[in-house]
Amino acid sequence: MSDGHLIEYADAGPEVRAVFDDIKRTRNLPDVNNFWKVLAHDPRTLKRTWESLKEVMAPGALDPLTKEMLYLAVSVAHNCEYCIASHTAAATKRGMTEAMRGELLAVVGMASETNRLVTGWRVPVDEAFR
Amino acid sequence: MSDGHLIEYADAGPEVRAVFDDIKRTRNLPDVNNFWKVLAHDPRTLKRTWESLKEVMAPGALDPLTKEMLYLAVSVAHNCEYCIASHTAAATKRGMTEAMRGELLAVVGMASETNRLVTGWRVPVDEAFR
Amino acid sequence: MSDGHLIEYADAGPEVRAVFDDIKRTRNLPDVNNFWKVLAHDPRTLKRTWESLKEVMAPGALDPLTKEMLYLAVSVAHNCEYCIASHTAAATKRGMTEAMRGELLAVVGMASETNRLVTGWRVPVDEAFR
Amino acid sequence: MSDGHLIEYADAGPEVRAVFDDIKRTRNLPDVNNFWKVLAHDPRTLKRTWESLKEVMAPGALDPLTKEMLYLAVSVAHNCEYCIASHTAAATKRGMTEAMRGELLAVVGMASETNRLVTGWRVPVDEAFR
Amino acid sequence: MSDGHLIEYADAGPEVRAVFDDIKRTRNLPDVNNFWKVLAHDPRTLKRTWESLKEVMAPGALDPLTKEMLYLAVSVAHNCEYCIASHTAAATKRGMTEAMRGELLAVVGMASETNRLVTGWRVPVDEAFR
Amino acid sequence: MSDGHLIEYADAGPEVRAVFDDIKRTRNLPDVNNFWKVLAHDPRTLKRTWESLKEVMAPGALDPLTKEMLYLAVSVAHNCEYCIASHTAAATKRGMTEAMRGELLAVVGMASETNRLVTGWRVPVDEAFR
Repeated sequence: MSDGHLIEYADAGPEVRAVFDDIKRTRNLPDVNNFWKVLAHDPRTLKRTWESLKEVMAPGALDPLTKEMLYLAVSVAHNCEYCIASHTAAATKRGMTEAMRGELLAVVGMASETNRLVTGWRVPVDEAFR
Repeated sequence: MSDGHLIEYADAGPEVRAVFDDIKRTRNLPDVNNFWKVLAHDPRTLKRTWESLKEVMAPGALDPLTKEMLYLAVSVAHNCEYCIASHTAAATKRGMTEAMRGELLAVVGMASETNRLVTGWRVPVDEAFR
Repeated sequence: MSDGHLIEYADAGPEVRAVFDDIKRTRNLPDVNNFWKVLAHDPRTLKRTWESLKEVMAPGALDPLTKEMLYLAVSVAHNCEYCIASHTAAATKRGMTEAMRGELLAVVGMASETNRLVTGWRVPVDEAFR
Repeated sequence: MSDGHLIEYADAGPEVRAVFDDIKRTRNLPDVNNFWKVLAHDPRTLKRTWESLKEVMAPGALDPLTKEMLYLAVSVAHNCEYCIASHTAAATKRGMTEAMRGELLAVVGMASETNRLVTGWRVPVDEAFR
Repeated sequence: MSDGHLIEYADAGPEVRAVFDDIKRTRNLPDVNNFWKVLAHDPRTLKRTWESLKEVMAPGALDPLTKEMLYLAVSVAHNCEYCIASHTAAATKRGMTEAMRGELLAVVGMASETNRLVTGWRVPVDEAFR
Repeated sequence: MSDGHLIEYADAGPEVRAVFDDIKRTRNLPDVNNFWKVLAHDPRTLKRTWESLKEVMAPGALDPLTKEMLYLAVSVAHNCEYCIASHTAAATKRGMTEAMRGELLAVVGMASETNRLVTGWRVPVDEAFR
């Protein structure tokens, strides 16, 4: 098993290189993150994941910074260390300040607390929310 | 055990009533949600939770709608049915359209997928993120 | 698929009946909970789970009430509705008062909040804890 | 982003110092843990979290050791490495022996197993628990 | 908010209908599940999700039954009631017997237990696994 | 607290040695993994866990490779780093190829995504699944 083994551009086949090229072009970066270099072990999933991500994170009814912050919030709730690191960086690059980050994490913490209180107290859903 | 038993205003003591009054005034609502009516079984936690929530959700570096959407995203990741219902309603009231909701949920889904891919493939954190 | 189908004592085979008898005797109850009646679809898992549970929940370095409260706290963190209902009842039977329940849930909520803050802020482990 | 950057007492402003002083006095410790030193990047959340924690973890219907063990159990269920390390230390300081720790973790493991069995088998909630 | 509102074929636009048609054809079903009827509120996510699912669940190095069982196991770990119901049905249709289901859930339960024991005991990764 | 402290065979008592011997014999390995060496701090849990695991993972209606892959999928969903490392190795030893691993992780990721979409959109369970 090639755990954590990074496939660099020089060692990648044409299918993987095409995805790497598109990531670098779209994000205006000199190289891709480790996530993509490891996912290159499974070229079909690499391609599908990148194309899905590109569609989901594109500007739409929500702006890219808001999307990055939502991504970060979910990654904290899932306790994904790598994802927290990479999406904190990505959100910062898009304009998240330290104050915004502090408020984001405060909301994540508060939601976690009340989520458990609601569940533990077995609160019935309000008629108005049905 | 008073599971799911709602404490209505008429049956509440002065400490609980003071919190209910503040919630209704702050949110400009005629009544409080079931969450607060159940939490009223523990007046100290009711008071502390409301005061924390009021502070965390107040406008700051992030606007209230963004905070509500982050709250909703975390509630989905935690699979809290009541919280999803109530915070979908709250975010909608603050301006979340159906299109925004769709994009929010698409980001939550995408983050969940890549969080697991990252973990399962044991991706090492990039030097740039350390 | 026999989803949620309850196997009652009258319809159970001898292997299942032996486990049901032991549960009723050990807990001094007239009947077993739905959990056991559904798990009876898989007699080996029924037997193994009951025997493990009996060993784990027996008085030891921790008393049975503390164990029930720990069980409840974990069930809230895992968002298992059935388990919260049944272990709230079990802990109450062993002496958990409404005040104790309130404090237990407040601790679960607080732990959930700080767990996420720690993760989101990427706090390095103190040397003293290594 | 100041990831994992610790704000030491000497570099902290008066608002943060006041919280650090209260933590050290309340817990009778020469210094605060890394959690507080990182949270100091967001002084309001630092203050609110400490005050909430102090209230929640104070002796009440449950003693401080039981509360620490509940905190630890939830941290294991949430897979929070830092929190497991720090609350194992805190519970040990309050009197948790190695035997108690073993039983606590056995309960957490057992609850995790039956939580999933209940959910996977789609067990209906007993009438008695409604 | 159209919570839980199902968009039926008769009321769907051409983009949604095309996806519904492909689902019915691919799975040889007279109608699509509620999941797709609700996701139809967000046609782009509907289309992307279906196309991704079709690719991921197609026969490959793993057969479709094994894939369905993996899907079910993850849904139990995530406590997704709807997903457990629909993927239990899907796996059954592909050949999962009651005995196989029992063993699958026993493995999920066992993994949940040891996952927590490993985390709670802070087990260091073996050199052989690095 | 003996965090992460490994109890080696030479230092173990007869009860622990008997379990270590059975693990090595059953799995045909020269030594046991760190998990068992740490769990040896709690000999009763060590014994019970090993006996349960041996029963659950034995060939039955599902073959051992399928069981290992289910174990791995759950460990990814629970984000248990040690468990992912050890069960990736175990599944590989039983015949999981890199292609199979890629498809397994793609299914885990996909299930995670749709689990959250289902929950976030509040999809009602189909009558056919009740």
